[in-house]
Amino acid sequence: MVLESAELTIKAGMEAEFEAGVRQATPLFQRARGCRGMWLERGVENPLAYRLLVRWDTVEDHNVHFRGSEDFQEWRRLVGHCFDGAPSVSHLETVLEGF
Amino acid sequence: MVLESAELTIKAGMEAEFEAGVRQATPLFQRARGCRGMWLERGVENPLAYRLLVRWDTVEDHNVHFRGSEDFQEWRRLVGHCFDGAPSVSHLETVLEGF
Repeated sequence: MVLESAELTIKAGMEAEFEAGVRQATPLFQRARGCRGMWLERGVENPLAYRLLVRWDTVEDHNVHFRGSEDFQEWRRLVGHCFDGAPSVSHLETVLEGF
Repeated sequence: MVLESAELTIKAGMEAEFEAGVRQATPLFQRARGCRGMWLERGVENPLAYRLLVRWDTVEDHNVHFRGSEDFQEWRRLVGHCFDGAPSVSHLETVLEGF
Protein backbone atom coordinates (compact mmCIF):
# COMPACT_ATOMS: atom_id res chain seq x y z
CA MET A 1 0.00 0.00 0.00
CA VAL A 2 1.32 3.46 -0.91
CA LEU A 3 0.03 6.94 -0.23
CA GLU A 4 0.03 9.39 -3.12
CA SER A 5 0.52 12.95 -1.90
CA ALA A 6 -0.23 15.65 -4.47
CA GLU A 7 0.53 19.25 -3.53
CA LEU A 8 -1.90 21.44 -5.45
CA THR A 9 -1.71 25.22 -5.43
CA ILE A 10 -5.06 26.65 -6.49
CA LYS A 11 -5.70 29.98 -8.18
CA ALA A 12 -7.07 32.56 -5.73
CA GLY A 13 -10.85 32.71 -5.95
CA MET A 14 -11.20 29.19 -7.39
CA GLU A 15 -11.16 27.31 -4.08
CA ALA A 16 -14.88 26.46 -4.04
CA GLU A 17 -14.84 25.37 -7.69
CA PHE A 18 -11.80 23.20 -7.05
CA GLU A 19 -13.33 21.55 -3.98
CA ALA A 20 -16.56 20.88 -5.88
CA GLY A 21 -14.52 19.35 -8.73
CA VAL A 22 -12.71 17.02 -6.35
CA ARG A 23 -16.04 16.00 -4.83
CA GLN A 24 -17.43 15.30 -8.29
CA ALA A 25 -14.32 13.31 -9.19
CA THR A 26 -14.56 10.99 -6.17
CA PRO A 27 -16.21 8.14 -8.18
CA LEU A 28 -13.28 8.20 -10.64
CA PHE A 29 -10.97 7.22 -7.80
CA GLN A 30 -13.46 4.80 -6.26
CA ARG A 31 -13.53 2.75 -9.45
CA ALA A 32 -9.81 3.02 -10.24
CA ARG A 33 -7.79 -0.18 -10.11
CA GLY A 34 -6.03 -0.55 -6.74
CA CYS A 35 -7.40 2.68 -5.27
CA ARG A 36 -8.27 2.26 -1.58
CA GLY A 37 -9.18 5.73 -0.43
CA MET A 38 -8.82 9.46 -1.03
CA TRP A 39 -9.28 12.67 0.90
CA LEU A 40 -8.44 16.35 0.54
CA GLU A 41 -6.57 18.56 3.00
CA ARG A 42 -6.19 22.34 2.91
CA GLY A 43 -3.36 24.44 4.33
CA VAL A 44 -3.97 26.47 7.48
CA GLU A 45 -1.00 28.82 6.90
CA ASN A 46 -1.66 28.97 3.13
CA PRO A 47 -5.31 28.26 2.23
CA LEU A 48 -4.43 28.05 -1.49
CA ALA A 49 -2.14 25.09 -0.79
CA TYR A 50 -4.19 21.90 -0.94
CA ARG A 51 -3.00 18.34 -0.56
CA LEU A 52 -4.81 15.44 -2.20
CA LEU A 53 -4.06 12.10 -0.55
CA VAL A 54 -4.87 8.86 -2.32
CA ARG A 55 -4.20 5.31 -1.14
CA TRP A 56 -3.14 2.84 -3.84
CA ASP A 57 -2.13 -0.80 -3.74
CA THR A 58 0.98 0.02 -5.81
CA VAL A 59 2.71 3.02 -7.39
CA GLU A 60 1.90 1.46 -10.80
CA ASP A 61 -1.83 1.54 -10.06
CA HIS A 62 -1.46 5.32 -9.90
CA ASN A 63 1.36 6.13 -12.33
CA VAL A 64 0.55 3.64 -15.07
CA HIS A 65 -3.05 2.51 -14.83
CA PHE A 66 -4.80 5.62 -13.50
CA ARG A 67 -2.69 8.19 -15.36
CA GLY A 68 -3.18 6.22 -18.57
CA SER A 69 -6.94 6.04 -18.18
CA GLU A 70 -9.84 8.05 -19.61
CA ASP A 71 -10.80 8.77 -16.00
CA PHE A 72 -7.53 10.64 -15.50
CA GLN A 73 -8.46 12.91 -18.42
CA GLU A 74 -11.84 13.47 -16.77
CA TRP A 75 -10.13 14.23 -13.44
CA ARG A 76 -7.97 16.87 -15.13
CA ARG A 77 -11.02 18.27 -16.96
CA LEU A 78 -12.82 18.69 -13.63
CA VAL A 79 -10.01 20.37 -11.67
CA GLY A 80 -7.00 21.11 -13.91
CA HIS A 81 -8.11 24.67 -14.76
CA CYS A 82 -7.99 25.53 -11.04
CA PHE A 83 -4.28 24.62 -10.67
CA ASP A 84 -1.79 27.46 -10.27
CA GLY A 85 1.25 25.67 -11.66
CA ALA A 86 1.98 21.97 -11.98
CA PRO A 87 1.11 19.68 -9.06
CA SER A 88 3.99 18.22 -7.09
CA VAL A 89 3.36 14.51 -6.59
CA SER A 90 5.18 11.97 -4.45
CA HIS A 91 4.47 8.52 -3.06
CA LEU A 92 4.95 7.52 0.54
CA GLU A 93 5.00 4.32 2.56
CA THR A 94 4.09 4.12 6.22
CA VAL A 95 7.14 3.05 8.24
CA LEU A 96 5.81 3.66 11.76
CA GLU A 97 2.24 3.64 13.08
CA GLY A 98 2.83 5.54 16.29
CA PHE A 99 -0.75 5.66 17.64
CA MET B 1 -8.67 18.95 14.46
CA VAL B 2 -5.57 19.78 12.41
CA LEU B 3 -2.91 17.62 10.82
CA GLU B 4 0.70 18.68 11.28
CA SER B 5 2.82 17.64 8.31
CA ALA B 6 6.57 17.85 8.85
CA GLU B 7 8.85 17.19 5.86
CA LEU B 8 12.11 15.81 7.24
CA THR B 9 15.12 15.13 5.06
CA ILE B 10 17.42 12.68 6.83
CA LYS B 11 21.19 12.38 6.41
CA ALA B 12 22.13 9.38 4.25
CA GLY B 13 22.97 6.41 6.44
CA MET B 14 20.99 7.66 9.45
CA GLU B 15 17.61 6.28 8.38
CA ALA B 16 17.52 3.42 10.92
CA GLU B 17 18.68 5.68 13.75
CA PHE B 18 16.07 8.27 12.83
CA GLU B 19 13.25 5.72 12.68
CA ALA B 20 14.31 4.27 16.05
CA GLY B 21 14.34 7.80 17.50
CA VAL B 22 10.81 8.48 16.28
CA ARG B 23 9.66 5.16 17.76
CA GLN B 24 11.28 6.06 21.07
CA ALA B 25 9.66 9.51 20.97
CA THR B 26 6.13 8.18 20.48
CA PRO B 27 5.21 8.52 24.21
CA LEU B 28 6.16 12.23 24.08
CA PHE B 29 3.39 12.77 21.54
CA GLN B 30 0.97 10.43 23.31
CA ARG B 31 1.11 12.54 26.45
CA ALA B 32 1.17 15.93 24.69
CA ARG B 33 -1.84 18.18 25.23
CA GLY B 34 -4.32 17.86 22.35
CA CYS B 35 -2.31 15.24 20.45
CA ARG B 36 -4.58 12.62 18.88
CA GLY B 37 -2.26 10.50 16.78
CA MET B 38 1.05 10.33 14.91
CA TRP B 39 2.64 8.22 12.22
CA LEU B 40 5.68 8.33 9.96
CA GLU B 41 5.78 8.04 6.16
CA ARG B 42 8.84 7.58 3.96
CA GLY B 43 9.28 8.65 0.34
CA VAL B 44 9.25 6.01 -2.38
CA GLU B 45 11.00 8.22 -4.95
CA ASN B 46 13.35 9.73 -2.33
CA PRO B 47 13.88 7.40 0.64
CA LEU B 48 15.66 10.18 2.59
CA ALA B 49 12.47 12.28 2.48
CA TYR B 50 10.32 11.40 5.47
CA ARG B 51 7.03 12.91 6.51
CA LEU B 52 5.89 12.95 10.12
CA LEU B 53 2.13 13.37 10.50
CA VAL B 54 0.63 14.38 13.82
CA ARG B 55 -3.02 15.03 14.65
CA TRP B 56 -3.67 17.89 17.08
CA ASP B 57 -6.85 19.43 18.42
CA THR B 58 -5.54 22.90 17.52
CA VAL B 59 -2.49 24.53 15.89
CA GLU B 60 -1.71 26.06 19.30
CA ASP B 61 -1.45 22.62 20.91
CA HIS B 62 1.47 22.01 18.55
CA ASN B 63 3.02 25.45 18.03
CA VAL B 64 2.67 26.83 21.54
CA HIS B 65 2.23 24.01 24.04
CA PHE B 66 4.29 21.21 22.49
CA ARG B 67 7.06 23.38 21.06
CA GLY B 68 7.35 25.18 24.40
CA SER B 69 7.62 21.95 26.38
CA GLU B 70 10.51 19.95 27.79
CA ASP B 71 9.23 17.05 25.71
CA PHE B 72 9.94 19.01 22.52
CA GLN B 73 13.57 19.38 23.62
CA GLU B 74 13.64 15.61 24.21
CA TRP B 75 12.12 15.02 20.74
CA ARG B 76 14.85 17.13 19.16
CA ARG B 77 17.50 15.36 21.24
CA LEU B 78 16.27 11.99 19.97
CA VAL B 79 16.07 12.82 16.25
CA GLY B 80 17.43 16.32 15.54
CA HIS B 81 20.98 15.14 14.76
CA CYS B 82 19.56 13.03 11.90
CA PHE B 83 18.01 16.04 10.08
CA ASP B 84 19.69 17.22 6.89
CA GLY B 85 18.50 20.84 7.02
CA ALA B 86 15.57 22.39 8.82
CA PRO B 87 12.22 20.59 8.76
CA SER B 88 9.42 22.16 6.71
CA VAL B 89 6.25 22.17 8.78
CA SER B 90 2.69 23.03 7.81
CA HIS B 91 -0.76 22.41 9.22
CA LEU B 92 -3.68 21.05 7.25
CA GLU B 93 -7.41 20.69 7.71
CA THR B 94 -9.49 17.99 6.05
CA VAL B 95 -12.00 19.60 3.67
CA LEU B 96 -13.25 16.47 1.89
CA GLU B 97 -13.43 12.87 3.10
CA GLY B 98 -13.78 11.17 -0.26
CA PHE B 99 -13.85 7.51 0.83
